[in-house]
Parts: sequence; structure tokens; C-alpha cells
Amino acid sequence: MINDIEIIKTESSKINEVDFDNLKFGSVFSDHMLVCDYKDGKWQAPKIMPYQPITLDPSAKIFHYGQSVFEGMKAYKDADKNVWLFRPLDNCKRLNISSKRLAIPELPEAYFMEGLKALLELDKDWIPTNDGSSLYIRPFVFASGEGFHASPADEYKFIICTAPSGSYFSGEVKVLIEEKYSRSANGGVGFAKAGGNYAGQFYPTQLAKAKGYQQVIWTDDNTHEYIEEAGAMNIFVRINDTLITGPTSDRILDGITRKSIIELAESEGIKVEVRKLTVAEVVEAAKNGTLKEMFGAGTAAVVSPIAGFGYKGTDYDLPKLDETYANFLKKRITDIQTNKVDDSFGWRFKV
Amino acid sequence: MINDIEIIKTESSKINEVDFDNLKFGSVFSDHMLVCDYKDGKWQAPKIMPYQPITLDPSAKIFHYGQSVFEGMKAYKDADKNVWLFRPLDNCKRLNISSKRLAIPELPEAYFMEGLKALLELDKDWIPTNDGSSLYIRPFVFASGEGFHASPADEYKFIICTAPSGSYFSGEVKVLIEEKYSRSANGGVGFAKAGGNYAGQFYPTQLAKAKGYQQVIWTDDNTHEYIEEAGAMNIFVRINDTLITGPTSDRILDGITRKSIIELAESEGIKVEVRKLTVAEVVEAAKNGTLKEMFGAGTAAVVSPIAGFGYKGTDYDLPKLDETYANFLKKRITDIQTNKVDDSFGWRFKV
Repeated sequence: MINDIEIIKTESSKINEVDFDNLKFGSVFSDHMLVCDYKDGKWQAPKIMPYQPITLDPSAKIFHYGQSVFEGMKAYKDADKNVWLFRPLDNCKRLNISSKRLAIPELPEAYFMEGLKALLELDKDWIPTNDGSSLYIRPFVFASGEGFHASPADEYKFIICTAPSGSYFSGEVKVLIEEKYSRSANGGVGFAKAGGNYAGQFYPTQLAKAKGYQQVIWTDDNTHEYIEEAGAMNIFVRINDTLITGPTSDRILDGITRKSIIELAESEGIKVEVRKLTVAEVVEAAKNGTLKEMFGAGTAAVVSPIAGFGYKGTDYDLPKLDETYANFLKKRITDIQTNKVDDSFGWRFKV
Repeated sequence: MINDIEIIKTESSKINEVDFDNLKFGSVFSDHMLVCDYKDGKWQAPKIMPYQPITLDPSAKIFHYGQSVFEGMKAYKDADKNVWLFRPLDNCKRLNISSKRLAIPELPEAYFMEGLKALLELDKDWIPTNDGSSLYIRPFVFASGEGFHASPADEYKFIICTAPSGSYFSGEVKVLIEEKYSRSANGGVGFAKAGGNYAGQFYPTQLAKAKGYQQVIWTDDNTHEYIEEAGAMNIFVRINDTLITGPTSDRILDGITRKSIIELAESEGIKVEVRKLTVAEVVEAAKNGTLKEMFGAGTAAVVSPIAGFGYKGTDYDLPKLDETYANFLKKRITDIQTNKVDDSFGWRFKV
């Protein structure tokens, strides 16, 4: 536990400028942010201050060497105005797993957890209550230390910002299974939420968008035969009544929504297989009618049904079912997240 | 050509605070910098202004999604105070190749070239003249546009800073040939000078340093059997009297020093092979005495002889020769760069 977090409150809240009925994803920001500096070999005490610009030297290593990691979380408010997080300690632990791989000093758990709670307490009026909306939380760490030598920085900033947000995707999602570009290497940083993992996906995703797809499903960089993940989401495939998702690895993010969906599905009696899944198997299932569903799972997108996929110039439509695992599991997980049902898993966390 | 670059000169030069006889690499910065903003769908005219901090919103995409690329160049001053660059248009072209892969808008060539010339004209007194020193030039582009959606930014900054610099490495360089971690994926961004490529190397390099090595030689992520590059340098191996370096690929940077060394060596009658090179071949050559030299080649490190390498727990020392390709080629290239000899290649560029 940390004793006192210094809090400097804003003198003029921006909350009345926000249209909470028409929120985009992550584009308006709450009044305050948490800032914690690493210098002199240790993380200094976190402070909460008005949301404000960051000033850095042009030689700050974030601009040159991509030393940055982040997390994505959401806060929900129930009918009684209680504020809830979902498995926040897992985000904290994963942030430090990412940091370690990027040679960023790991953050004390209490700074993350107590800092986050204090920030949400202060900005709780920013948590939207409309269905499908939430307060998106963005903890991130980046290298603020200076110099052009290609080596780890000696100073870092850990910041938490929050943004009242609507859905991540609008409309149906068609995906392209990638045959040429790759997201990550064996022995690389694909398992980490490292900034550079995202920038590398933008260009291939632009190419896919130009062909009418919203997202890319990445395949392994060596053979392009195995389904990996979708960058902002892990991927689930339902063949007949079995739900299949790839195992995590050093190339695939250990998604918190992913592992929750696996546990939820199993607890509901759905057969789940965590195993390597080839593109060929998915294409074959699409052809013979056993492919029932595909969906993405991630904090931002929650559970995002996939309407169809493209592969080697052919489009495959997914069937339109009345009752889908995606909708069922999405309702189950959001009901837990928003305190509408009991949480036998112990995932919900009261702020 | 661009008409007029707006120039705001510093009111107080810092040049008298700098000890030009004891320069480190990239840690003191010249008086001015060039800044060019991308907004409203186009690159705006560049400006030169005093070196100063950059102010960004916490949601600027550079902090979250690693959208950044850079270049490294050097300026030299000859005995007649003429200022020289080395193949600068190649850096400009490569910056745009990197930018394209990272979904960053490409920069007009004239903004880069004319901007750089104007900046060097203004700060020419910062170019060191001591042997082995130079003015290190860092052009870089990063995403300044805002928002937490994982998609390309709508605003960017292109900046050129310069830093009077000494050697990149001090002392002899021992390298570790990597067996577990990887730098890049097939179909990834390894060929680009993308920030994220560097951050991913820091942790494995820290592990190598703890074992007494200064750098890691990366191998392919699939088999770890092929020599790739060293992150800040391309790698050359001399077996008997043949100089061997790997071909560039989507995993390996197309180094300007690398390709210059190849041309220089060939013009001097040295047999050069550009081909895939296995670790096994290098180890075998070390064992049977045919491995004569290894060296790295890059803008920052120029030509950096390797004293020995470690692989699978065994250390292999390189022989200490009186006359090495590394020293010969380093002298040839630096003599051209610093206008001490004729440049039959047309590489030198007068500012």
C-alpha cells in the first residue's frame, strides 16, 4: 500500500462538454490523469493531476527506439453507482511482463492498483452508464530518458488516462487472413503489449481495408498456415459445437478477455479446445458447413462477431445463426463486468 | 525545391558549454532543430527553431502504438571547412520506405534535403573536426495525432536534430550469437528503421551484456541457423580472403554503410559474397582457422571490428591480424566521407 497519493484537482471540469449518448472509442478524455516517474533508479510516488500535455526533450527515447508498453481496461458503473473493474491485477501483472521484455523497469503493483483506484474515485462521474459504453482505461509506460544511443532509457513515465467510450467496432466485421505480412516473430515481442507491435500492423490493415475488410487475422510468420490473433483481439472459431482458439505463445498476447471466455464457455458446458488451428482447417470447415462462428475477444472490442473472412482471393461468409456462442458469451461476460449477475469466478473488482 | 524555410535563431548558443575533445555519442545537441508537421492531410513547410522540448497530448499515438521511424547520418568538416554528407538521398529514400511500412505519410524529398542543408548551414560550427568525431544527424518521424483507437494517426512530426558525437563503441566488441530471442519476422518490419525494432532488442542485449558481450548478432526467428544483423550494424564475416554478408530481406536493414562497404571492397579487388551465411559455417571456420575477421558496419559505428563471439556457451576469439579488411575499409570509407581522397563513387555530398 502507498500512503498518500498527491492529488491536484482540475479547476474547470470538461464533463459538461461531453455528449455521453454519442461516445466514440477513446477520443475524449476525463479530467484527471495519474503520472508516476521513474528516475534515479526507482519509481517515484504517483501523482494525480489535471489531464494535460506531456513535455519531452526531442531526444527522449520514446521518439526513437519504441520503448513503450500499455494496457487496456474498462470501468463500469452499476445501477447503484458502484464502480467495477474486471480482473485489474491481471492487467497490472501483464504490464510488467511487457515491460520486462522491453527492458522497462517493472512498476510496483501498489502504484498501479492504488493509483488506479484513486483516479477512478476522483473521475467516477466520467463512467458512462449507457449499454455498451464504459470508461476505457489506458495505463501506459514509455521511455522519457534522453540520448541517441540505442540502449534502454534511464527515465520513464507511467501514466493512466481514462476515456468514456462507446463501441470499438461499428457495424459488422469482415476479416482478411494474412498470407504475406506478419505481426510477430518467434522469440520476439508479440506476447507483449508493446507499442511497436501495433504500428507494424497498420499498413497491412490499410491494405486489407482497401479490399473491404476491417481487420487482419495474423498467421505465423514462417508458414502462414496457422491462425494466430487479430492484433486488437484474440480469435475464436466454432466448428460444429466446439470452440477453438490458439494457444498463447511468445507471438500471441495472453488476452484477459480470451482466458475469461475460455473459462466461461467451459463452465457453461461448451467444449473448448486450445490448440493450434490451421487456416486450411477453417477454410475446409467453411466449405463443408461445419464452421458456425468466428469472433474476436479483447478488452476494447469485448466479443466481436466476425461476419466473414477472405483468404487467397476467396470470400467465405459465416452463417447467420439465431443463437450464437458469441452473443451468449458476450452477454455472460458483460453481465459479470457490469454487476448484473453473480460472479462465481471472482473476476469483478469493486473500486 | 522549397522556397523559404522559416528560421528562428536561438538567442543564446550553448556551443561554449561543449567539450569537443571529449564527446560521447549523441548526448549533447546542437542549437537548432528542424520541425515539419503533417496535418490536414499534408506535410506543412519545415521550420528551423531553437532546440526545444516537444509538447504532446497524453493520447498522442507515439506513446501507445509505436508509430515512429528514424534515420542516422553524419556530417563532416574537411580542412577547408567544407561540410560533407554521405549519400544523404539514400537516407531520405529509406526514411520513406520505413514510413510506408509503418503507415506514416511519406515526406517530400525536398523538405528532407533542403531542410537538412539549411539546418547544417546554421549549425555548422557544431561539426567536430577531431579524428573519429562527427556531427551525428537524427531525422525522425513520429505520430503526434491523438486518440486510443489502434489505427494510424492523422498528425505526425518530422524532426531533425544534430549531436556532435564521438565513437559509438568504446573498446573492443564481443558479440553473442542469439539462439532464443529474435529481432524480426518474415513479413514484419525488420527492414524498416522503426522504433519498435530497437526496443525489442534491449532486453536480450542486456542478457548478453551480463555475460560479457556488447552486442547480439541476430539469427532468423525460425531456425536460428542463419546470421542476420546486429541491430545497430550489418555484419560482415571474412573467411580466408572472402568477405561474406547476408542478403537484405524484409527482416534485415538495407544499411547504407553495408552497401558502400560491399562496393568499396569489390573495387579494391576483395572477393565479396552476398549470400545466406549459417552460424555453423562461421563456427566451423573459427575452429579450422579460416575465420579471419568479423566486423559490423553502420552509420553510427562506421566499421566496428569484432574481437570474438559466443555461441552455445563457447567463446570463439578472432585472430589478431596486422592488416585487416576492417581497418582498410574503415579508412577508405572515412577518407571518402571526410574529403581526404577522391570519391570515384559519387557518394560525398557537399552542403
